[in-house]
Amino acid sequence: MALPNTIRIEVFLSRSQADEMQLKDKNVVVIDVLRASTTIATALYNGAKEVIPVSSIEHAAKISGNMAGDVILRAGERNAKMIEGFNLGNSPLEYTREVVGGKSIIFVTTNGSGAIVRGRHAKHLLVGAFVNLGTVVGALAQLREDVTIICSGQSENFCLEDAVCAGKIIQDLKSARAGNIELDDAGQAVLSLEKGYGKNILKMLKQSEHGQFLAEIGFGDDLKYCAGVDTVPVLPLFSGNTLRAGGELKRRPAQA
Amino acid sequence: MALPNTIRIEVFLSRSQADEMQLKDKNVVVIDVLRASTTIATALYNGAKEVIPVSSIEHAAKISGNMAGDVILRAGERNAKMIEGFNLGNSPLEYTREVVGGKSIIFVTTNGSGAIVRGRHAKHLLVGAFVNLGTVVGALAQLREDVTIICSGQSENFCLEDAVCAGKIIQDLKSARAGNIELDDAGQAVLSLEKGYGKNILKMLKQSEHGQFLAEIGFGDDLKYCAGVDTVPVLPLFSGNTLRAGGELKRRPAQA
Repeated sequence: MALPNTIRIEVFLSRSQADEMQLKDKNVVVIDVLRASTTIATALYNGAKEVIPVSSIEHAAKISGNMAGDVILRAGERNAKMIEGFNLGNSPLEYTREVVGGKSIIFVTTNGSGAIVRGRHAKHLLVGAFVNLGTVVGALAQLREDVTIICSGQSENFCLEDAVCAGKIIQDLKSARAGNIELDDAGQAVLSLEKGYGKNILKMLKQSEHGQFLAEIGFGDDLKYCAGVDTVPVLPLFSGNTLRAGGELKRRPAQA
Repeated sequence: MALPNTIRIEVFLSRSQADEMQLKDKNVVVIDVLRASTTIATALYNGAKEVIPVSSIEHAAKISGNMAGDVILRAGERNAKMIEGFNLGNSPLEYTREVVGGKSIIFVTTNGSGAIVRGRHAKHLLVGAFVNLGTVVGALAQLREDVTIICSGQSENFCLEDAVCAGKIIQDLKSARAGNIELDDAGQAVLSLEKGYGKNILKMLKQSEHGQFLAEIGFGDDLKYCAGVDTVPVLPLFSGNTLRAGGELKRRPAQA
């Protein structure tokens, strides 16, 4: 079987660009560095059975009502703050092995979980952040297929930290020599941003709008945690409306 | 009167982010380097009386029907191609003094003119490109007020060339020392992109998706023209649904 020579990577710089049908059958990576992606990776790495992303609080309440109480945690945030009646917020530091081990976590966040739900018809949907970057890149390098990266951003807007993380995924895929990488304009841009900002990720997070906001409301330690690279080597893979720690991705059958 | 110390610049990386009410009373710069902004600047520099941007072909036909024939030109494109029955396309090279001098031009383009129309309730709306960069920066430096830059992009997507042009406006405003410049994430990003791509604008245009498309369909010379910096020193200023070559921008009265 001949290896494909070219991997085409497209990048969406905000989640508003990504519509559900456009993502169908694609290999999608959803990035929300501050903080949904980082938190989801941490939860799965620390032994959570699954993370069920939902796009609204109402939906979270409905699902958890149908499940057995003590194996379920309701988690997430609205505008960076914990939701009343929920067990956990969106700080990755809360998701210790003691708290999340063996649990199903219903997860609602302002931006990240909505972007994941929108990608439910993707062929593969991965969740990426700096903390699990090498694992995501490794899986994509082995897959050698086209990739769509969604920077979740804040509301409908651009976020520096997600763009730089997307650039780092592309940079590391290039280094892995998985194939010729072909980039759209946004892909070229994030790669250039990675060159400018990727050497000091914590500094970049502190400089970003959402990073500044989080630091102001007392989550400065989260920035340090989210700036860690490969500290949580796990592959959050979406299947059947649930994220679990995944293994290898399946290649498309070769065309006859 | 005390000078304001801080100029806040926000950047929209695609026109989908910019809604009409959000732009109300702001100082807005619309960028569509390939090619609407460049063409509008060229038309006004070459003596066109006015450019009337409209967002649809139907609208163009309606307006021109009410105006005297020989002083009117209908111009623009759909997907980079000339519109049947129109006098001009969207190549700036067509807009010579002989053709456009003294004329009113009704102008419809895929992306740029829609973004301009959306900014009709702005305090000031300028059209910027590389060809008139210094003039736009000069006007903003003198104004010393907050600025919103819209990168028109292609459809709802990010365009490298508009982002780099936005970055160059910010870079030159910083150099002009008009005040402390405060940037949002997108502003930081375009400034970084300008550092990476701004030294060879023609190379960047050739590398961009839309530049490649234009070169393929025979508009390679347009790229060279659009890469020129300060070749067409004019300030296209929108007022009363019409763009004309403008002079000084009016400062907001100082707060009591």
